[in-house]
Amino acid sequence: MSSDPLVIFTPSGKRGHFPVGTPVLTAARQLGVDLDSVCGGRGICSKCQITPSYGEFSKHGVTVADDALSEWNKVEQRYKDKRGLIDGRRLGCQAQVQGDVVIDVPPESQVHRQVVRKRAEARDITMNPSTRLFYVEVEEPDMHKPSGDMERLVEALEAQWQLKGVKTDLHILQGLQPALRKGKWKVTVAVHLGDENQPPKIMHIWPGYYDGTLYGLAVDLGSTTIAAHLCDLKSGEVVASSGIMNPQIRFGEDLMSRVSYSMMNTGGDQEMTRAVRDGMNALFTQIATEAAIDQSLIVDAVFVCNPVMHHLFLGIDPFELGQAPFALATSDALSLQARELDLNIHPAARVYLLPCIAGHVGADAAAVALSEAPDKSEDLVLVVDVGTNAEILLGNKDKVLACSSPTGPAFEGAQISSGQRAAPGAIERLEINPETKEPRFRVIGSDIWSDETGFDAAIATTGITGICGSGINEAIAEMRMAGVLDASGLIGSAEQTGTARCIEDGRTNAYLVWDGSAEGGPRITITNPDIRAIQMAKAALYSGARLLMDKFHVETVDRVVLAGAFGAHISSKHAMVLGMIPDCPLDKVTSAGNAAGTGARIALLNTKARREIEETVAASRRSKLRSSRVFRSILSMPRPFPTRKNPSQFWPQ
Amino acid sequence: MSSDPLVIFTPSGKRGHFPVGTPVLTAARQLGVDLDSVCGGRGICSKCQITPSYGEFSKHGVTVADDALSEWNKVEQRYKDKRGLIDGRRLGCQAQVQGDVVIDVPPESQVHRQVVRKRAEARDITMNPSTRLFYVEVEEPDMHKPSGDMERLVEALEAQWQLKGVKTDLHILQGLQPALRKGKWKVTVAVHLGDENQPPKIMHIWPGYYDGTLYGLAVDLGSTTIAAHLCDLKSGEVVASSGIMNPQIRFGEDLMSRVSYSMMNTGGDQEMTRAVRDGMNALFTQIATEAAIDQSLIVDAVFVCNPVMHHLFLGIDPFELGQAPFALATSDALSLQARELDLNIHPAARVYLLPCIAGHVGADAAAVALSEAPDKSEDLVLVVDVGTNAEILLGNKDKVLACSSPTGPAFEGAQISSGQRAAPGAIERLEINPETKEPRFRVIGSDIWSDETGFDAAIATTGITGICGSGINEAIAEMRMAGVLDASGLIGSAEQTGTARCIEDGRTNAYLVWDGSAEGGPRITITNPDIRAIQMAKAALYSGARLLMDKFHVETVDRVVLAGAFGAHISSKHAMVLGMIPDCPLDKVTSAGNAAGTGARIALLNTKARREIEETVAASRRSKLRSSRVFRSILSMPRPFPTRKNPSQFWPQ
Repeated sequence: MSSDPLVIFTPSGKRGHFPVGTPVLTAARQLGVDLDSVCGGRGICSKCQITPSYGEFSKHGVTVADDALSEWNKVEQRYKDKRGLIDGRRLGCQAQVQGDVVIDVPPESQVHRQVVRKRAEARDITMNPSTRLFYVEVEEPDMHKPSGDMERLVEALEAQWQLKGVKTDLHILQGLQPALRKGKWKVTVAVHLGDENQPPKIMHIWPGYYDGTLYGLAVDLGSTTIAAHLCDLKSGEVVASSGIMNPQIRFGEDLMSRVSYSMMNTGGDQEMTRAVRDGMNALFTQIATEAAIDQSLIVDAVFVCNPVMHHLFLGIDPFELGQAPFALATSDALSLQARELDLNIHPAARVYLLPCIAGHVGADAAAVALSEAPDKSEDLVLVVDVGTNAEILLGNKDKVLACSSPTGPAFEGAQISSGQRAAPGAIERLEINPETKEPRFRVIGSDIWSDETGFDAAIATTGITGICGSGINEAIAEMRMAGVLDASGLIGSAEQTGTARCIEDGRTNAYLVWDGSAEGGPRITITNPDIRAIQMAKAALYSGARLLMDKFHVETVDRVVLAGAFGAHISSKHAMVLGMIPDCPLDKVTSAGNAAGTGARIALLNTKARREIEETVAASRRSKLRSSRVFRSILSMPRPFPTRKNPSQFWPQ
Repeated sequence: MSSDPLVIFTPSGKRGHFPVGTPVLTAARQLGVDLDSVCGGRGICSKCQITPSYGEFSKHGVTVADDALSEWNKVEQRYKDKRGLIDGRRLGCQAQVQGDVVIDVPPESQVHRQVVRKRAEARDITMNPSTRLFYVEVEEPDMHKPSGDMERLVEALEAQWQLKGVKTDLHILQGLQPALRKGKWKVTVAVHLGDENQPPKIMHIWPGYYDGTLYGLAVDLGSTTIAAHLCDLKSGEVVASSGIMNPQIRFGEDLMSRVSYSMMNTGGDQEMTRAVRDGMNALFTQIATEAAIDQSLIVDAVFVCNPVMHHLFLGIDPFELGQAPFALATSDALSLQARELDLNIHPAARVYLLPCIAGHVGADAAAVALSEAPDKSEDLVLVVDVGTNAEILLGNKDKVLACSSPTGPAFEGAQISSGQRAAPGAIERLEINPETKEPRFRVIGSDIWSDETGFDAAIATTGITGICGSGINEAIAEMRMAGVLDASGLIGSAEQTGTARCIEDGRTNAYLVWDGSAEGGPRITITNPDIRAIQMAKAALYSGARLLMDKFHVETVDRVVLAGAFGAHISSKHAMVLGMIPDCPLDKVTSAGNAAGTGARIALLNTKARREIEETVAASRRSKLRSSRVFRSILSMPRPFPTRKNPSQFWPQ
C-alpha cells in the first residue's frame, strides 16, 4: 500500500494516492474526476472550485486533518477579494494535497453536471455541450521554426488540452494574428467538439482569458409558431425563451396548404424559405435583446420541425412531400453552418437538425422521443404532441411506433368562428351547468371565473375577445356533457335543449357563450362548423393513435402523455370526453409541455443525446419499428375525413 | 492450374484466369487493372475501350484465337454508329472472355494515365484528379423503407462504387429530388475524393448519364501577373491558358510596398483582397470563354503564390510578414471552398493552396519543388524561379534548402526608363558589336534582326515601343562585354567609349539603343539608373543563391534551372554575364518555363502529389531542411542593398 496521502472525491467516490504537493486539480484529472477548468490550472478561471471536508469519515475509513491541504494562498485570496468565493471553497489548481483528504466537487464545478428537469418522471439532462472554452499559451513565432501561428495554436491545444487535429475556418485565420499578439500569446479558444468523426474545430478566439459565456439555441420550428430557448452552454440554464408566429402562415395555415402553394407558384418554396429564415432571425434578435447578450455569442443551435418545415427551412422544395410515397430529400441528421442558412448568430455557429423518421414523421417526432423516451418506458405509453400537425408515438422499451397526423390549426383556435390565439382576453376554461345549460368561464389574464364577484373588474383592461384552443375544446366537451350537443356533433335548437343560449345559425344552431355586443364587444358563439372543425382535428388525432394501437394489437394503453403547448393547457378529462385520446385512467394522463422543444434542448446541451437519437432512428429504420402504413393512410388526404358521413365512430357515446 | 481462360492485360502485365463469359471490365477490376468506367459496365459511357490482340504471343506464352472474345454486339454497334469507335477497339463491359486473350488498355481508357511533360528531364504527371464522375442507379423511394433520397443515393454509391460515407452540401440537397426524378433514378454524380481524412463529397448531380468533362484550374498567383491553366480533369490536357496583370499592382509593385500599403491604410488589406479576387474572376471568365466551356464545370482549383499574395488572397492582413520574425498566419496546405473566396466557379468547387515553407518562402516555392523535384536529383541543382519575388531552391536527394529574394520588377521591364511589358514592339534580344559598339536587336512580333533587310517592313504595324525584361538584361550584359559599361556599373562617356551612342544624361551617361523621335517614336536608351535597378535585382537573386551555397559549403553547383516566364526568355549566357546566377557550365543551365504554374498543375491533376509536397514540407520543417537565416537577412530590407556603396562585389570582373 502506498504511503502517499489518499484523496477521495465526492460525489463520484473516485479515490487514489498522490504524492504530497500534488494540486487537487491534477489528482482529479488523473482519476478522471469531472472537475472543470478553462485555464488549465493557471489560477485564472476559478472554474475548479472544490470543497474539502475535515474530520473523521468512517464511511471512507479516513480522518482528514486540518492541514490535509496546503495553506490558503495569494492566488485564492486575490480571487476571493475580486470575485468572491464561498466560505470553505478552495481553488483546485492551488490547493495541494498534504495528507489524506475528502474533496467534494460542487455541481457548478462539474463539466458534465446534471440539469434537473421539473417533471418527476423526466430524466435529467447531462451536460455535454458541443462547444467549450480552452485557455492556451501559444509558442511565439521563431525564424528558426517557421511554422504558422495557426499551426502553433493547434500544437498548443494538443499539448495542453489533448485536442487532436484541431481544424479551423477561414474567418478564424483572418483574425488569428491580432488576437494572439493582443493576448501576448495567451488566448481563449471556443472549440466545437460535437460532430462525430469530424475533427474539433475552432469557432472563436479571444485575446487573453475570456471569462464569458457561450450560448446555444433550442428551436421548435412549428407550422404555426416558432419557439426558441436560449441556453447557457455551461450551466445548461434557459436564459430566455421567446416565440413568434411562423411567418409562413400567410402561405397557408397547414402543411399541405404550403406544399400546394409551392406547387402552384414558381419560386413559392423560396419565398417560404426566406420568410421562415427572416422570422427566425427576428426571433433570435428578440431573444438576444431580452437576455441582453451579444447575438454572436450564440455558437450552436438545434432545430426540430416536421419534414415540410425541415425542407422549407433548408431551402428544399417540399413538392415530394405532397404526394405518395412522401420521399424526403434527406432523412439523416444534419450538421450545417449558420451562415449556410443565413442565420444571424456567430458566423461559424453550428446548426444541428435531428433526423427525420419517415416521410411525414419528422425531427420533431424524434425530439419528442428524446424528451419523453418511450423507448425506455416499462409500460405502454402513448405520447401525443398536439400542434397543427400532431406527432404520435406509441411504445415501450421493446418497440416504439411513430406516426404524424394533420390535425390542422383548429385545436389552436384557428378556423373557429370566435377563435383566437391564447392571449389575454381569450376564454381558456369553460364549464356548462348540466341543469341550467348556463356557461361559466375564465379568460387569460385573470383567475376569477365569470360567475364570481370581481370578474368584471378583473377583465376591465383585456375585455373578452374570443376563445382560444383549450377554451373551444372544453366548451365542446361541456356542451356534449350538458346535452346541448348530440353524439353526431349537432347542436340542438332552443326547443330541443330548453335553453335560449341555443340560437338559430343558418340551417343549424349555435351556442351563445357571451354576448358583449351591447358594449360594442364580440358575440362569442360555438357554431356547428366549429364543432365540425374540432371533430375533424380530433378524429385525425384519435385515428393516428388508434392505428398505432392496432399495429400493436392493443385496445388500451397504460398511460398517455399530452405534449405541445396545447397539451399543456387542455384538461385530460375534456380531451378524453372529446375522444381526442384513447380511454385511459385519468390519473395516467400527464402533460409534458413542449416536448419537442425539450428534445431540442436535450440535443443542444448533450451531444451524446444526438448520437443516441440518430442511432435510435437508424435502428428503427432497420428493424421497421415505425409504422409507415399509418401515416400514409392519414396523410394521403389533405384533411382527415372531410366527406365522412358518420363521425360518431370517433365520438364517445 | 485453372482450366479457365487466361486473360493478360497490357501494358500492366497483370494476368489471371476467368470463367468463360466474364466481361473484360470485370476481369480488369478483379485484377486491379486501371481500366476506366463511369457507367459501371452498363454499356453507356464507353470509357472502358480496350484493344484485344490475336495470334501467338511467345512472350506471354499464349496463342489468342479469333474467337477469344464474345462476338461484337449491338451495344458496341450502336455506340460505333453514334459516336465512332477506332477499328479493333471493343467495349470492355460488352466483350466477354471466351478463351486465352491478350488485352491492351489504351492510355485514354486509363484513369491514372500519364500526362507527358515536354521537357526531357521532367517527370510525367500521373493522373489522379480530386473529382471523378460516377453513374449510379438509385433505389426508388418506398413508403415501407422511409429513408431519404440522399440516403439511398449514398447507399448506391457505396454498393456500386465502393465509395464509403459519402457526404454532401446543402446546395446538392436542394437540387437532388428533381435530378433523381428527371433521370428516372439514374444519375451521374461528380464526387470529390481528394481530401485526406475527409469523406468523399458530392459536388454535382446530373440526371441520367452525363457525358461531359470536368475542369480544374492551376493558378500561379504572382505579384505582377496571374496566370491560369484550364485543365481537363480526365485527360490532364491543358485546354486553355491565360494571364492578366495582378490588379494589386496599383497598391505597390513589389510585395513589401503592398505590405506597407496595408500598414499605412486602414482596410488596405481588404481593398487588395477584393482587387485580387476580382482579377481572378475576370481571368476565369476570360479563360472559360476562350475554351468555350461553362464556368460552373470548373470543380477544382489549385493556387500557388508567395506568402504575401497567399495572405492577401485569403483575406488575411499581411502585416506580420512585413517585420521579423515574418510569422505566417498559417503555413499548412489549405483546402477551402470556392465560395469562401468569392470565386465564380462551381459553387462547391474546392480550392487547394500548397503549403508555405517559411515566412517568405511560399506555396510557389513548394510548387517549384514539386515541378523540378530537386529532392530527387542526384547532382546538386540550383532552381531559380525569377519573378518580382524570386524563389530559390538548392539541393539534391539528400537535402534541399529554399529561400526567397525580393528582386523587384526590374527584370520584367518595370522601373526601367524605356522598359515595358513583353508585348509586340518591345525589344527582346539585343547584341552590341564590341568593335563598333553598334547595337542590333529584335522586337517581339518579328524574327528579323534590326540590321537585316525587311526589318522596317516587319515592324511596320507594331513599331518599336520600348524594351522588355529579357531585352534590358541582354543590353546590359552586352554593354559590359562591349566595354561601354565599367565593372562598377557606370556607363562611359562618348569620349571614353569612342561611340556617339553614349550620350550625356544628367550627371551620368546613357546608351542610345534606338532613336525613333524623327518619326514621332520613342528614344530608347539604357540609363545609369536602369543599370542600378538591374544591379539591385540581380544582386538580390545572386546573394540568395550564394547564401544557400554557403549553407551547403559549396562554391559551385552542378546545374542550374532557370524558371519563371523571365527565365524562359533570358539567355543563360547573359544571365551568367550579369552575375544573376553562379558560374556553371553553360550547357548545364536549362530553362523550366513556369515551374510554379507546372507545380500547380501537378497538384491539380494528381492529388497524391499534394500529400507528397505536404509531407516534404512538413519533413523539411522537422529536419530544418530550409534556410530560415538566409531569407531573413535578405528580406529584412525592403530593397536589397539600397545604400550599398560598392556593388562590384556582385559584378563579374
